[in-house]
Amino acid sequence: MKFYNFKGERVFTPGPVEIPDRIREALSKQIIHHRTKEFTEAFLKTRELFKKLISNPSENFVFFASSGTGAMEASVQNFFKAGDKVVAVVGGKFGERWAELGRCWGLDVIELSIEWGKSVDPEAVEDVIKKHPDVKGILLQMSESSTGAYHDVKAIGEITKNKDILLVVDAITALGVYNIKPYEWGIDVIVGGSQKAFMLPPGLSILWFSEKAERKLNNRAYYFSVKKEVEKQKEGQTAYTPAITLILALKEALEIMLEVGIEELERKYSKMAEGVRRALEELGCKVFPENPVISLTAALPPVGIEADKLRKVLLSMGIRLAGGQGKVKGKIFRISHMGMDYLDMVQAISSIELALKELGKKIQFGKGVGTYLNVIYS
Amino acid sequence: MKFYNFKGERVFTPGPVEIPDRIREALSKQIIHHRTKEFTEAFLKTRELFKKLISNPSENFVFFASSGTGAMEASVQNFFKAGDKVVAVVGGKFGERWAELGRCWGLDVIELSIEWGKSVDPEAVEDVIKKHPDVKGILLQMSESSTGAYHDVKAIGEITKNKDILLVVDAITALGVYNIKPYEWGIDVIVGGSQKAFMLPPGLSILWFSEKAERKLNNRAYYFSVKKEVEKQKEGQTAYTPAITLILALKEALEIMLEVGIEELERKYSKMAEGVRRALEELGCKVFPENPVISLTAALPPVGIEADKLRKVLLSMGIRLAGGQGKVKGKIFRISHMGMDYLDMVQAISSIELALKELGKKIQFGKGVGTYLNVIYS
Repeated sequence: MKFYNFKGERVFTPGPVEIPDRIREALSKQIIHHRTKEFTEAFLKTRELFKKLISNPSENFVFFASSGTGAMEASVQNFFKAGDKVVAVVGGKFGERWAELGRCWGLDVIELSIEWGKSVDPEAVEDVIKKHPDVKGILLQMSESSTGAYHDVKAIGEITKNKDILLVVDAITALGVYNIKPYEWGIDVIVGGSQKAFMLPPGLSILWFSEKAERKLNNRAYYFSVKKEVEKQKEGQTAYTPAITLILALKEALEIMLEVGIEELERKYSKMAEGVRRALEELGCKVFPENPVISLTAALPPVGIEADKLRKVLLSMGIRLAGGQGKVKGKIFRISHMGMDYLDMVQAISSIELALKELGKKIQFGKGVGTYLNVIYS
Repeated sequence: MKFYNFKGERVFTPGPVEIPDRIREALSKQIIHHRTKEFTEAFLKTRELFKKLISNPSENFVFFASSGTGAMEASVQNFFKAGDKVVAVVGGKFGERWAELGRCWGLDVIELSIEWGKSVDPEAVEDVIKKHPDVKGILLQMSESSTGAYHDVKAIGEITKNKDILLVVDAITALGVYNIKPYEWGIDVIVGGSQKAFMLPPGLSILWFSEKAERKLNNRAYYFSVKKEVEKQKEGQTAYTPAITLILALKEALEIMLEVGIEELERKYSKMAEGVRRALEELGCKVFPENPVISLTAALPPVGIEADKLRKVLLSMGIRLAGGQGKVKGKIFRISHMGMDYLDMVQAISSIELALKELGKKIQFGKGVGTYLNVIYS
């Protein structure tokens, strides 16, 4: 089976995700200088749009010219001081990152380890807090991108919201996908990244924080100083040179997203995720996480087929999926829903049907796609 | 069923077709002046590449800054004089165009009419020639884009090649799809257009001609003068301002096409066409032409469903197909294979499955796609 792709490779990885034309057009514009009225106006408009995404009336959020990890580091630097005790939920590569960042900045990190692919039990969080009443923060992922597991931040918010504990949520693969309600749910810090549901290139991170978190702000950070940035950014400027092009393109991205609306976006991704999961199971794959997110699907290939072999065959058809990371390297494959349209996923599923057949599996062509279409049509 | 397409509409019309990124990058470059060594060199390189597409050792071809109809007009103007008797095969909108152009330029046009959707019988052509031994040319489509019918130019070439008759072939939706062998088959004029298998925007047409046709060249044309253009173009220049950007992007397009090779391209399109036809029939549609081309598929929707209604539902999902033209307006729908990759077609077929369901037809989701995948995998 030979594939010749005029259009080149299609990127189905959970970040970076494919960039829609409207955003590419914005990205291809000539640079403007950032210390200008033009930039200030565009930036303020972008900030207004961002507020709508999480029903946020405040100015407590900043953009950094960095990848998402930068905003994770900023969360640790700005809201905690050396010696502060925090709980890091570790059930994947990005949970590990929280623990590493905490230790790097002198925090006393309690690792709440869970099996990769599992979601944290809110009662386990409650137990740790009871055992350590001096805990100052819970660091976790809403969507653990390395395993595709969903952590119930809302339930954990119920535990932390009336305590002197900050709930710090890496929502890099959740922001713009889920209708996150930080006030209602009791979230104190939200971290996001441009190359996920915002459908932008990497290089822009987002850090949102609550009034409760605001009261904890310190002066430890320099480049990632939330205090300095928020003062400047609410006036439409930045402390250091911003990722100008990404900020301007973010405006376009937010417009695309808000034309749909975050509630409807969550519905779209939810349906897409359910369809993909059922289709993969129909094809003999096994969804990896116990409680999966809707922003991506992580799955084990059918028994006897290596995940990376499957990905290699898919790549020969011009379809790029992601593999596993850390402990599940080589074991799983991951498909993004972020930035994808309903009909994009029929390409992903069809190519998996073809690849499994190519690898010797008995496949009734169209069965996976049919299962998917049944879900999205319902 | 609500569709939100981040990526906007997908164009499955048989021209214009979607433009691959590599070509879009070429198109987005800053303009260069055409009366320069830089342009001349690029143009000569483009011409060299074009020769490989139809195994053509000669310099007998020109590009016009026009749509395909311009090169059709040029064929009539340059190779025939007023009063010349020609046969126009009329079995669709583009056959009608040959007849109209012939009359416009004073030719004595004999219309060989066939039912729309049918292919011309080479014997019928032979009969007309016998009845009219003074016929100077046969004008026809290799691929009649309005009906999706294939006319057997090779068989007709057998009839005309040793006679004083020019075989003039509109190959606008055939060039770059079929492995056309003009010398072997006895074709005298080939017309092509940029927005079809070349995956470029419209605005560039191609006219190739044989040595036999060269001997007939006259001086009637001005803008479409083949004589003037061929003299200039074989030296890397043009008589009038060329479509600079399209010429430069054509180089990229030809490189993409020749990386695959025309034989393999024909194989790809052939498989794709067979898969699409079988899938549509599986879904209750009826392929319209008797002997279909491989560059596009024209089909009737299932009984009881209006073609334009179907297209409207598809458009609401972000999928644009073409409708019928002329006599079959409102009756058929048409899907391009030109410029498409194998996995693009699973989007087209899936969307038709969804749309037919939406229009009340009993559809087992995935059946059309499965049928298609079976063909392309074979």
